[in-house]
Amino acid sequence: MSRLVMKFGGTSVADLERIRRVARLVAAEKAAGHDVAVVVSAMAGKTNELVAWTDGAGPAGAGLTPSDDEYDVVVASGEQVTAGLLAMTLRNMGLNARSWMGWQIPIIADDAHGRARIDDIPPEKLAAAMDSGEIAVIAGFQGVTRDGRIATLGRGGSDTSAVAIAAAVGGACDIYTDVDGVYTTDPRIESKARKLAKVSYEEMLEMASLGAKVLQTRSVELAMAYHVPVRVLSSFVEPGEAPGPGFEHLGTIVCDEEEIVEKRIVSGVAYSRDEAKISLFGLPDHPGVSSSIFGALADANVNVDMIVQSHARTADTANMEFTVGKRDAARAVEIVRTVQKEVGFDDVQVNEDVAKVSVIGVGMRSHAGVAKSMFSALAEKGVNIQVISTSEIKISVLIDAAYTELAVRALHAAYELDQL
Amino acid sequence: MSRLVMKFGGTSVADLERIRRVARLVAAEKAAGHDVAVVVSAMAGKTNELVAWTDGAGPAGAGLTPSDDEYDVVVASGEQVTAGLLAMTLRNMGLNARSWMGWQIPIIADDAHGRARIDDIPPEKLAAAMDSGEIAVIAGFQGVTRDGRIATLGRGGSDTSAVAIAAAVGGACDIYTDVDGVYTTDPRIESKARKLAKVSYEEMLEMASLGAKVLQTRSVELAMAYHVPVRVLSSFVEPGEAPGPGFEHLGTIVCDEEEIVEKRIVSGVAYSRDEAKISLFGLPDHPGVSSSIFGALADANVNVDMIVQSHARTADTANMEFTVGKRDAARAVEIVRTVQKEVGFDDVQVNEDVAKVSVIGVGMRSHAGVAKSMFSALAEKGVNIQVISTSEIKISVLIDAAYTELAVRALHAAYELDQL
Repeated sequence: MSRLVMKFGGTSVADLERIRRVARLVAAEKAAGHDVAVVVSAMAGKTNELVAWTDGAGPAGAGLTPSDDEYDVVVASGEQVTAGLLAMTLRNMGLNARSWMGWQIPIIADDAHGRARIDDIPPEKLAAAMDSGEIAVIAGFQGVTRDGRIATLGRGGSDTSAVAIAAAVGGACDIYTDVDGVYTTDPRIESKARKLAKVSYEEMLEMASLGAKVLQTRSVELAMAYHVPVRVLSSFVEPGEAPGPGFEHLGTIVCDEEEIVEKRIVSGVAYSRDEAKISLFGLPDHPGVSSSIFGALADANVNVDMIVQSHARTADTANMEFTVGKRDAARAVEIVRTVQKEVGFDDVQVNEDVAKVSVIGVGMRSHAGVAKSMFSALAEKGVNIQVISTSEIKISVLIDAAYTELAVRALHAAYELDQL
Repeated sequence: MSRLVMKFGGTSVADLERIRRVARLVAAEKAAGHDVAVVVSAMAGKTNELVAWTDGAGPAGAGLTPSDDEYDVVVASGEQVTAGLLAMTLRNMGLNARSWMGWQIPIIADDAHGRARIDDIPPEKLAAAMDSGEIAVIAGFQGVTRDGRIATLGRGGSDTSAVAIAAAVGGACDIYTDVDGVYTTDPRIESKARKLAKVSYEEMLEMASLGAKVLQTRSVELAMAYHVPVRVLSSFVEPGEAPGPGFEHLGTIVCDEEEIVEKRIVSGVAYSRDEAKISLFGLPDHPGVSSSIFGALADANVNVDMIVQSHARTADTANMEFTVGKRDAARAVEIVRTVQKEVGFDDVQVNEDVAKVSVIGVGMRSHAGVAKSMFSALAEKGVNIQVISTSEIKISVLIDAAYTELAVRALHAAYELDQL
């Protein structure tokens, strides 16, 4: 019997009717011959309610205190409720099921409360339960520290719970979500977007971090490290709709690059409007300038993404542009101003009307010319490129935000992604 | 340093403002020199919401399934939330506090889910935390079974949690509730009712089981068994209102009889309108009749309270009257009818317009004449007595429900309870 971990997010378990739908999907996979564990999030809205209470109980005006161990005690209760309700519903359908909290398995986490990382999942108890035919219904998002306190993994942590459990018990992981797979680009922008049958971990990581909000980044990293096959599929499928006894033909599989026989040069076009560009003018051209600026930003935990430096034609000074997350932009400008005297640049400007558009594909490793066709396609449509950055399997450009859709569609066509 | 367990029910922690009030009370007792543990219920209304969900997830139409271990997983989450929020609030006031779930202490319970009994509370961890000056905030109503499942103690179980914890760590137990103590009778009926400074466990047990809903019966039994001094007081006191540094002069202390110096013959008058009287007519007068009837009721878990049998003057048959809880009345009649043929009685009638009025006092043990003065006081007011039952420290009479208030006031005056 193969082991399968199924994960359902908050909207999939938002009320009793949806929990019954989830129970039917679980029953279908059980009937198809899998030993099943199910990881559930809190019912949609519940986590927000709990967080609001901790807000009120925490220091006045300080807002969230997610590093507090007591925050975790309150917030982790949401998943506990869903796990109990789903186990009851499965039993009511005549199936053998029980719920598991993080401390019962145990899912051992570090004590970085509110954003804890999973250290270890001893698989014995869970594997024994699954082998006995019992469906294990697991509260996602939570673990237990080595000194017995409840710890939560941060938002989206249930994806990570599911992948880690699949790694521990040696099974596959199906992530049920509100989309039916990973697409070549956002179908809301390009109606010709196609669903990918398979995508590699590396590509998925780039897509996740570039704004395709299908899977949480940490869960993909974990899946890659432990070679857990992950499938993304829609929780709105009904058992009867599947072509086989299970759902093998649905969704997108995220797997090792080696398991993808026909490698495409480009697998997808991603975009993000969450960036802001910061420009510094009149920088003195001597060593230590970059280090002063980016050191100050790093000390303040501001993540810098793209960086480009250019020399002014006529003077002995340089200009520099870099991008940060939009919500960090104001703070980044403030920090940069604190080192203005020391560094000695003329001016700083911020531009929030930018978008990052990227093409991603493992095939780039062995194919030249990908960048060239990207720049031509954008030039043809009159899209000006402000900043460029590349990795082994990705090329990103920063452009005027108004051109986002145009650029995405142009690149989707240029790489013939509608021809899959 | 003396150890003190403070318990707050659902209405006392119904929202963040009330949780802050509770935190101030806890801070005052801490400042008064106690090592403090706090036991909390779920926020008022939360348990009902959770129970409603389990209702929906359980067998269709079957209503509550409180014997289900998964019911406990869902319902126990309510106390977890309150414990975390109160711990956060205390920390925010600069105090050292942490929450404890049943499984963390552990509070070891049997596996009668939904109505579990506490088997054991190893005191080491909790006592060490309290001794270190940390306020222990404990989720009431819950324990953990020996195989690591969550178990709840049933409604009102937080009182039991609090007393059991006080017994385990060797401390006193203050139960904060919506009344400010135990009264000689219900002040809504008799405005001259006086608050008792002290009442014995035995008296409190009789009062609790007779309808004075101040303390849960099991918590009083436990306090008696382990000699835990329990105090009942109002959670609506403000720290500034107390005469001393703590709240020593407030509420009613429930304690061993020996600690009450001036024993009153009668301490209080209790009443209950939750009874129904069932009358059987024309019973054959031979052995085995009672056994058939009450055996059948016991098999169906119907609790019978008062019983009286009388012989008809002119025939060879008897009549029998007994009382059951009102909600069991219809079922009791049904059960009695199933043995009618076998037993051979003529008729069965049920009367729900009855009330049980009782006088309670440990002084009865050494004083004769209590019953006589009770019956005279009722006769003077024209109250007819239908059934009588007595224990060592209690006399109860069943009367027409319309006379309840009259009877309570007459007895309160007859024993001079307004003269305390």
